[in-house]
Amino acid sequence: MTEYVRILPDDLRRFTATCFIRYGVPSEDAELIADHLVLANLRGVDSHGVIRIPYYTEGIRKGYVRGRGEVKVVKETDTMALVDGDNYLGIPVATKATDLAISKAKSAGVAAVGARNLGHVGMLAYYTLRFARNGLVGMVSVNAPARVAPWGGSQALFGTNPISFSFPTSSKPIVVDMATSAIAAFKIRLAALKGERIPEGIALTKDGRPTTDPKEAYDGILLPFGTYKGYAISLVVEILSAVISGGTLSKYVFNHPSTQGGFFALALNPSILRDYSEFLRDVDTLVNLIKTCPPAQGFDEVLVPGDPEDRHYEDRVKNGVPIDLSTWKLLVEVAKDLDVELPKIIG
Amino acid sequence: MTEYVRILPDDLRRFTATCFIRYGVPSEDAELIADHLVLANLRGVDSHGVIRIPYYTEGIRKGYVRGRGEVKVVKETDTMALVDGDNYLGIPVATKATDLAISKAKSAGVAAVGARNLGHVGMLAYYTLRFARNGLVGMVSVNAPARVAPWGGSQALFGTNPISFSFPTSSKPIVVDMATSAIAAFKIRLAALKGERIPEGIALTKDGRPTTDPKEAYDGILLPFGTYKGYAISLVVEILSAVISGGTLSKYVFNHPSTQGGFFALALNPSILRDYSEFLRDVDTLVNLIKTCPPAQGFDEVLVPGDPEDRHYEDRVKNGVPIDLSTWKLLVEVAKDLDVELPKIIG
Repeated sequence: MTEYVRILPDDLRRFTATCFIRYGVPSEDAELIADHLVLANLRGVDSHGVIRIPYYTEGIRKGYVRGRGEVKVVKETDTMALVDGDNYLGIPVATKATDLAISKAKSAGVAAVGARNLGHVGMLAYYTLRFARNGLVGMVSVNAPARVAPWGGSQALFGTNPISFSFPTSSKPIVVDMATSAIAAFKIRLAALKGERIPEGIALTKDGRPTTDPKEAYDGILLPFGTYKGYAISLVVEILSAVISGGTLSKYVFNHPSTQGGFFALALNPSILRDYSEFLRDVDTLVNLIKTCPPAQGFDEVLVPGDPEDRHYEDRVKNGVPIDLSTWKLLVEVAKDLDVELPKIIG
Repeated sequence: MTEYVRILPDDLRRFTATCFIRYGVPSEDAELIADHLVLANLRGVDSHGVIRIPYYTEGIRKGYVRGRGEVKVVKETDTMALVDGDNYLGIPVATKATDLAISKAKSAGVAAVGARNLGHVGMLAYYTLRFARNGLVGMVSVNAPARVAPWGGSQALFGTNPISFSFPTSSKPIVVDMATSAIAAFKIRLAALKGERIPEGIALTKDGRPTTDPKEAYDGILLPFGTYKGYAISLVVEILSAVISGGTLSKYVFNHPSTQGGFFALALNPSILRDYSEFLRDVDTLVNLIKTCPPAQGFDEVLVPGDPEDRHYEDRVKNGVPIDLSTWKLLVEVAKDLDVELPKIIG
């Protein structure tokens, strides 16, 4: 028996959008959320895909986040904006903030937009890819419920605080999208399920002792990636995301998969200082240097950030999105509760 | 016998400025370079302090960098600028680029400035501290002669590509300033001198084999910090620094301590979106959370980025700058060559 069911992306989008519409989300936003979550699955980022449907809807039911909101631009200049999300689902709020940054950077050259009071924004690459499709260099970050200790500390003060960058090239964009914790929370859960140990130096018990036991780690505290340097990046993300916008510090964000701290987006138009064709030529040269770099011992090839996700995408857009059975079970329950037709299993 | 001589900062500045003036550097710029290098020593960043005098002057003698240059702003808008450094010493060029970003961000809210064709810019914190003193959030990066392989690769494509961030607080600013390599080149040299091994996972031999032998590592290739995540940050620095400005890619930067690729500076005015006092209050809250975080096993305290440098500064500004004897020997030679009076040893 297969561990997965396969679903066509269009059908999965239709299902996702309908679920959110049943929760009172305006249809345009429901379709945006569906597009976002299914893109995460297509890119292989399953932790940020349709598995979020039950969590986001639970967040709405329990009042952690709203299914409708009056999103307001509370401050705005030619180069900056501050969006208040009215505690609405994060994907439409962060998309609005991103699109503001895009239009401002196109004309002004650089733009920074912050957003506060919003739910979980999903996969950051969704936003930076939007910048790249518009010929812009983009950076996006969020802070999140506290799970990560500062380097040398024994209490969680930061979220997994992901950061994403994207750069256009002549072909597909370079896309960095990474948590600043040493490991993602869901990978610890997976290790616990499989009875495996986790590596040293990535987690502490809740009392601040180093551990390689995934159960202790899951109830405990994560460490930043790359020791004190990753800690510094994690702190930078915290300030950019929570403090620039007046969002909630990670320490005070309610811990649920539907919640978030603040959101920060920065866009830069590379064609202001140089001919865009010259910019692309030099990025392409760099990509080519990386792709033709001989692999080190133990490696088959050298990847550009975004390559693994692009490979998933090419496979899944053709062969359908694999949904693991535990996620599928959650979707079956959602479908029953809401009386929404399940997407068709194609394999 | 002591391993160090101690010098008063003012005397060290006077000596440094005079050396550069003898090389034809305009006196205002020579004083700026002296201020910069001595600040690096005061902050304990000795690799970027007065040890650079013999290297920068060698760079001028050998034609790797110029002692006088016609620095030009070749593109300029309200939010962006591109500086061409005419291959002049990097510190005055990067300071000019930084000051352009400061004045633009103060009025426009956000600003990005690139610089190309410039020598080594010294310690990045010098520039981000300038942002913080002006109430701005700042980011600065440079690329540098290739020493670091992309993750999974066996050839050096990136420089140690440092990045710095600074955030104002009610007291001293938070200052991140770090190489994106797993180890600084001078620390490897130190390990070789002491006959110590270096940790696993930070360097390869020149043939791409992992090594813990500092001599092999020094002739070989460094790895990025934090495995594939640090590689991603290193690549981000490469594009921001070299490609936005049309500077030289690390792979093609001539390898000498007086050279650099491109420089990138970004500044953001946090008082556009929020009251500055509220911004400061929230950054202070975060700093306080970090400082009061109970230390983990094996740690005495939790530091905020910039704390170690501030402690050095407090000590050295009072007690003088310790110069190790091998650096002192180099300075003695420079003083003799140029007929400049050596600074007085105070201890």
